[in-house]
Amino acid sequence: MSAPGSIFDKILSGEIPCYRVYEDEHVLAFLDVGPLSRGHTLIIPKERRAFLHELSDETAAAIGRVLPRLCRAVMRASGAQAYNLLQNNGTDAHQVVMHVHFHIIPRFDDAGLGIGWKPGSLSPSDAKQLLAKMKESLAAEG
Amino acid sequence: MSAPGSIFDKILSGEIPCYRVYEDEHVLAFLDVGPLSRGHTLIIPKERRAFLHELSDETAAAIGRVLPRLCRAVMRASGAQAYNLLQNNGTDAHQVVMHVHFHIIPRFDDAGLGIGWKPGSLSPSDAKQLLAKMKESLAAEG
Repeated sequence: MSAPGSIFDKILSGEIPCYRVYEDEHVLAFLDVGPLSRGHTLIIPKERRAFLHELSDETAAAIGRVLPRLCRAVMRASGAQAYNLLQNNGTDAHQVVMHVHFHIIPRFDDAGLGIGWKPGSLSPSDAKQLLAKMKESLAAEG
Repeated sequence: MSAPGSIFDKILSGEIPCYRVYEDEHVLAFLDVGPLSRGHTLIIPKERRAFLHELSDETAAAIGRVLPRLCRAVMRASGAQAYNLLQNNGTDAHQVVMHVHFHIIPRFDDAGLGIGWKPGSLSPSDAKQLLAKMKESLAAEG
């Protein structure tokens, strides 16, 4: 569950106002007031969960469904040709508000998400170990 | 459309093998062979599009629906407690393969996605301008 009283809880309840972009039964989208770039938009579920892995399939599908049209709206409003979708889970992964949120962050020459990328390699033996555990996890859910 | 002959096209057609985690009618998930951290997983649509804003609602919903269970599988296999979901659109936004792909990237003390975050502020007048254009874009789609 998300922490009661998070800022997104208060936005959902109407206690705190937001610049609302879109709303439906499952989803609310609004402008980030601390944007990394012009047009930076947040999409949150009405289901109150802290992390993506806690969301119901139904809510997660509802968020997925509206992403393309919200990306188009962000592009048209900001003029951006490139953008990142980011969703952080856990303090160690840069999550600050403990209610699931997806960022659409337009990329311009001088603004947007900074990305650090230090790839390693995947050995066949480790791949085999990981796959076995992942398939076990997926199978257990039916 | 995605560039014909991208590496993900070849994975989808079976021309190039992958460490397959999950597959359904719309979605394929597999291990990234250049992982940022152990368990780094890619989710791609079978619909051949380069960018998220080009995906059909149906495909985007199908991807959304499987994200929570794939995140649970990545956590269980890797032991990670924190992770990032990232999806890049456009070369300027760090996209390399021109077929839509979502990264699930476990975060450990010493490995994962590097994030640079330099927030600005949103003025009420700019918010009003952006909202007007975004709502126009959304309304035009019905």
